Amino acid sequence: MRDEEFIRGAVPMTKSEVRAVSISKLELEEDSVVYDVGAGTGSVSVEAAGAVRKGRVFAIEKKKEAVELLYANKNRFSRNNMTVIEGTAPAALKELPAPTHVFLGGTSGSMDGILEAVLEKNPKARVVINVISLESLAEAVSCLKKRDIEGEIVSIQVSKARKAGAYHLMEGQNPVYVISFGGEKKEEIS
Amino acid sequence: MRDEEFIRGAVPMTKSEVRAVSISKLELEEDSVVYDVGAGTGSVSVEAAGAVRKGRVFAIEKKKEAVELLYANKNRFSRNNMTVIEGTAPAALKELPAPTHVFLGGTSGSMDGILEAVLEKNPKARVVINVISLESLAEAVSCLKKRDIEGEIVSIQVSKARKAGAYHLMEGQNPVYVISFGGEKKEEIS
Amino acid sequence: MRDEEFIRGAVPMTKSEVRAVSISKLELEEDSVVYDVGAGTGSVSVEAAGAVRKGRVFAIEKKKEAVELLYANKNRFSRNNMTVIEGTAPAALKELPAPTHVFLGGTSGSMDGILEAVLEKNPKARVVINVISLESLAEAVSCLKKRDIEGEIVSIQVSKARKAGAYHLMEGQNPVYVISFGGEKKEEIS
Amino acid sequence: MRDEEFIRGAVPMTKSEVRAVSISKLELEEDSVVYDVGAGTGSVSVEAAGAVRKGRVFAIEKKKEAVELLYANKNRFSRNNMTVIEGTAPAALKELPAPTHVFLGGTSGSMDGILEAVLEKNPKARVVINVISLESLAEAVSCLKKRDIEGEIVSIQVSKARKAGAYHLMEGQNPVYVISFGGEKKEEIS
Repeated sequence: MRDEEFIRGAVPMTKSEVRAVSISKLELEEDSVVYDVGAGTGSVSVEAAGAVRKGRVFAIEKKKEAVELLYANKNRFSRNNMTVIEGTAPAALKELPAPTHVFLGGTSGSMDGILEAVLEKNPKARVVINVISLESLAEAVSCLKKRDIEGEIVSIQVSKARKAGAYHLMEGQNPVYVISFGGEKKEEIS
Repeated sequence: MRDEEFIRGAVPMTKSEVRAVSISKLELEEDSVVYDVGAGTGSVSVEAAGAVRKGRVFAIEKKKEAVELLYANKNRFSRNNMTVIEGTAPAALKELPAPTHVFLGGTSGSMDGILEAVLEKNPKARVVINVISLESLAEAVSCLKKRDIEGEIVSIQVSKARKAGAYHLMEGQNPVYVISFGGEKKEEIS
Repeated sequence: MRDEEFIRGAVPMTKSEVRAVSISKLELEEDSVVYDVGAGTGSVSVEAAGAVRKGRVFAIEKKKEAVELLYANKNRFSRNNMTVIEGTAPAALKELPAPTHVFLGGTSGSMDGILEAVLEKNPKARVVINVISLESLAEAVSCLKKRDIEGEIVSIQVSKARKAGAYHLMEGQNPVYVISFGGEKKEEIS
Repeated sequence: MRDEEFIRGAVPMTKSEVRAVSISKLELEEDSVVYDVGAGTGSVSVEAAGAVRKGRVFAIEKKKEAVELLYANKNRFSRNNMTVIEGTAPAALKELPAPTHVFLGGTSGSMDGILEAVLEKNPKARVVINVISLESLAEAVSCLKKRDIEGEIVSIQVSKARKAGAYHLMEGQNPVYVISFGGEKKEEIS
């Protein structure tokens, strides 16, 4: 889905290319139960909710302003299987059903506690984390080491052409680290 | 889908991250008719065929060795809506039904002719092109200018961590340019 | 040299990292005669003039506003061996002594003519070109092919950390292509 | 200087582009006293020794194999102001004169101790660190935070064209993080 389809405020949004990679790495199934923690504008939630037609997506967000955008985008795309949760993770996850897939887009320094809560609910949950700061990257690496998890870590650097007269100038976007691990990979093969 | 799920030979394969971005940019619908030109191992075809459950994917490939991989991967993933076409585009496209979506992964210097053939069949086809050489990049830019098409051009640079003892070393993959344009964007919005 | 040392206007400036790579690829000698075509703020000229203590640097620039910055930066760093030439290349190169080293930072669509003029004056000149648009990249590749020159082509993508509270966010800068060829590599080895 | 000018073994070498950026960030003066810790093949030492004509460069290296390459490259380029020190930092730094500039190319998990030793000798030393692993990146960030140092952190991602028939394929190199701080920036301005 294109970035411009979403209703956006001043809230930062995962760009379409990084969103596509992150959702691909989630390896969603039709009936997945997805947490989108730090859901922001909801671009990941909306796209995930479109993929898990028989499943559910919980979009958890603590910022008032973003929560409104979440509702706006949920409505815009008629995602009836998407539930907006206003609150702070991990506390806000307590009453939710166990997830099969978890996307961490923003963890405000609580990555370890959030992972703890998530993996307690489902030790085999598939987890994908996006980080843009060096500190969160170190936090993610440390969270994985602590749990003896060997995840996949990629960084994605996108540049996009901008038209300037007859020229296309390539403009660098901010690099994003995408960390992923876990999951019960169902064989797609018959 | 993960790269290691596919049966691979010596044939180069679009890496999972670039494949995810490319397929996202295709904006497939359930009933799309897709051409995958220069299909290689078929990773794009297989993933697209999974997305267009009521549609069809034509995987066009001229190299004998790759054609065998195409059949192997089609069977491995039971993609009954995927048709392998051995031949060289644009000639090999002649008898095929008009496409709604076209992925050009390899055009062997015939990008202009292939685009001509594709757009004649359907001027509103959504087209996504992957290029890795400077010459093909220039060819793509020139093909778009010639037709007065203002497409989107992004470059994707992925680095992936490799475990070396207690360390994760980031290893650079080759950058890929993803060019996309056209399509009749159906409103997903109710 | 750091970017903030230079007097800057609205004129775009080669960033320090790309400047360092470009000057390194110039392989300047103490007595080199350098052209800096499309000199902009003069950051390359100033740095080159510091390296060629017994040589000379000609900073060629057509934009009035940039010419003033060139003089300002020449003075700021007391580069007496740096000559500012107001004019448009290749015409403006006519009266200048033959160069040993040429940096093309901006060629306004005249890359071929500028290379022609430069190589006529000295077929063994070492040339380094910076391009940021896809069109100029294609132009550079085509200029080299036409002359049967096999140059080196690298792209440099820099991201720089920005402090945001307790976090360092990596911010992507625009990728720059650096093309280099030619030169009479003097053996530095005794 | 070009990579191919150096005598190389199986020892990893800082690539020319990253070397150029790193040396630029060192901001060497003619009379600088430089440590190159984890000197490897000596490419940084050789290039630095050429820049500090009236200064000295100490190339510290613990691996026997690399020490031999250091001597070979010192001789190849007649760098009489370059001293090879076989040993492990920080212990090996003890007897050396205080540095004005320090390059850390490999610290084998002792970055904190090395920085401690270096900054004790000269609290105003200019320090440039290259890291390629996520763990060393975290270590560097943590070393800076601990000392309340706000350094500059950039990542450099280089792709280089490889000729394949009539095509230039861009090949990604591994990204390198370059961290720099400190120094008594002498005004170059008169």
